[in-house]
Amino acid sequence: MAKRVVVALGGNAILSKDASAEAQQEALRRTAKYLVQFVKQGDQLIISHGNGPQVGNLLLQQSAGSTRENPAMPLDTAVAMTQGSIGYWLQNALGKELRSNQIDVEVATVVTQVEVAKDDRAFENPTKPIGPFYSKEAAEKQQHLHPGYVFSEDAGRGYRRVVPSPKPINVCEANVISKLVSNGVVPISVGGGGVPVVRQGEVLVGQEAVIDKDFASEKLAEQVGADLLIILTAVDAVYINYNQKNQTALKDVTINELEKYIAENQFAKGSMLPKVQAAIEFVQHSDNARAVITALDNVSGLMQGGVGTVISKK
Amino acid sequence: MAKRVVVALGGNAILSKDASAEAQQEALRRTAKYLVQFVKQGDQLIISHGNGPQVGNLLLQQSAGSTRENPAMPLDTAVAMTQGSIGYWLQNALGKELRSNQIDVEVATVVTQVEVAKDDRAFENPTKPIGPFYSKEAAEKQQHLHPGYVFSEDAGRGYRRVVPSPKPINVCEANVISKLVSNGVVPISVGGGGVPVVRQGEVLVGQEAVIDKDFASEKLAEQVGADLLIILTAVDAVYINYNQKNQTALKDVTINELEKYIAENQFAKGSMLPKVQAAIEFVQHSDNARAVITALDNVSGLMQGGVGTVISKK
Repeated sequence: MAKRVVVALGGNAILSKDASAEAQQEALRRTAKYLVQFVKQGDQLIISHGNGPQVGNLLLQQSAGSTRENPAMPLDTAVAMTQGSIGYWLQNALGKELRSNQIDVEVATVVTQVEVAKDDRAFENPTKPIGPFYSKEAAEKQQHLHPGYVFSEDAGRGYRRVVPSPKPINVCEANVISKLVSNGVVPISVGGGGVPVVRQGEVLVGQEAVIDKDFASEKLAEQVGADLLIILTAVDAVYINYNQKNQTALKDVTINELEKYIAENQFAKGSMLPKVQAAIEFVQHSDNARAVITALDNVSGLMQGGVGTVISKK
Repeated sequence: MAKRVVVALGGNAILSKDASAEAQQEALRRTAKYLVQFVKQGDQLIISHGNGPQVGNLLLQQSAGSTRENPAMPLDTAVAMTQGSIGYWLQNALGKELRSNQIDVEVATVVTQVEVAKDDRAFENPTKPIGPFYSKEAAEKQQHLHPGYVFSEDAGRGYRRVVPSPKPINVCEANVISKLVSNGVVPISVGGGGVPVVRQGEVLVGQEAVIDKDFASEKLAEQVGADLLIILTAVDAVYINYNQKNQTALKDVTINELEKYIAENQFAKGSMLPKVQAAIEFVQHSDNARAVITALDNVSGLMQGGVGTVISKK
């Protein structure tokens, strides 16, 4: 039976070591070979992706080239720029794969704004490091130039700007994405977690913040009425006692069991924890919703069942 | 009667002097007040825009910040990045304007690839200057780093890279854009003329080239079956004997008359000429198609008729 599936691509689906456009495009061509399988089996596919290394690299270049006449762009605009570049690479790669498989389906990237709450407590406590490392002196200079910035020492590696990572409350273009997928198009959206905006009356005001792409993908999956949220990452499953002798991959797991493991601190903050939390939120919101956390190269197995961590209500 | 209208925004609708994100967003908020009028009167609106100054500025920053670990992006990717940034600003600004007018219509930017012919003669003769100015020595160094680049002296101002400007033959995402507009969404697309690609079997290969945004908008207008192509620019109409004592604004003009003026070299290359040529191509392709060339602040008058240059078949 055809399902509506949101697939959130992890960073390793796009960039491993080589940050050139060519290498990232090549990685996405490999990724597209996995993604096309959803379309082949008749699923309605919606793709989202991260942008951590790409927006970091862009901010570095912008900062190096910033002048009075040609100032560096703020973070919200930089996120939108990476939505453009990664979206182009991915729609190009998946388009090729669809044509190779004689599948007459279109792919399109939608630039996406994601609303966050003005009073999200993350704004009081920025924690997400972003952009270049600075020496103490260079960080002080930056602080002088940008009084609103917050810098934090990153153990041994210097100073880095930290920005808030508020929770998504609304994908502004969710209806457009719904219309596309209902019309047989594969949309690529909420890239990098979306451009963070705060609603002030009729205005959506861009924010110097980043949104976790798994939480944003979860919110999108809810809003478009997806049956399945697949979070792809570097490991094949969610593990308990990870990296210890008795590590165990979770196969089928309920949200109650996962909550118990969270209370035991089984999942790493800023890594597996937000993925597990996003999966729980999605499964919680409706009776039939399921979530899967697995690696990209498990996608074929996932279709037969039996690989990855499958999260359901009970 | 509701029309399907493609509006191509000129550079002055986005950037005049101040290249900061804030100033460009402010300019687009003013632009949005004009654009909303089409939606108000029930037209199906499709928006395109240029990216000349933005992609030039981005290339400058990329070049200043390019390292082995963080290499500058190629031109096709840089165009996609400006589609992301300008698209975000514009959908944000127009969204606000629609909400202020209690109009429940969505806006979305679609990242757009535009196909050009592999054997387009522009590839043998790159003429479009792009990116920073170099001294003779710096240009030679760049030439050594990028053997495929072509540099050209720009009278008195130094050396600049020149790239091909091939003609668009197919807007790859035209069907997606059609589906959006048929579903009541205002799409923003073919930004900067689109990401130039050449078809090689099933693969679309990104090119180090730029496509004229008016020609790309014309092609899009054909492919989505638009009734009207509006090319907005800095002057209120097409003039003959422009900037001379006897200059005359053209009001209603046929394509035959325009062809005659072109033969007389009435229109400046790289400025009004491509706009007039794009308008002629669009009007030629169907019996009811019309084109208008005018200034942004003439949009209200245009709706009553009587302003700008209106181009029709006969």
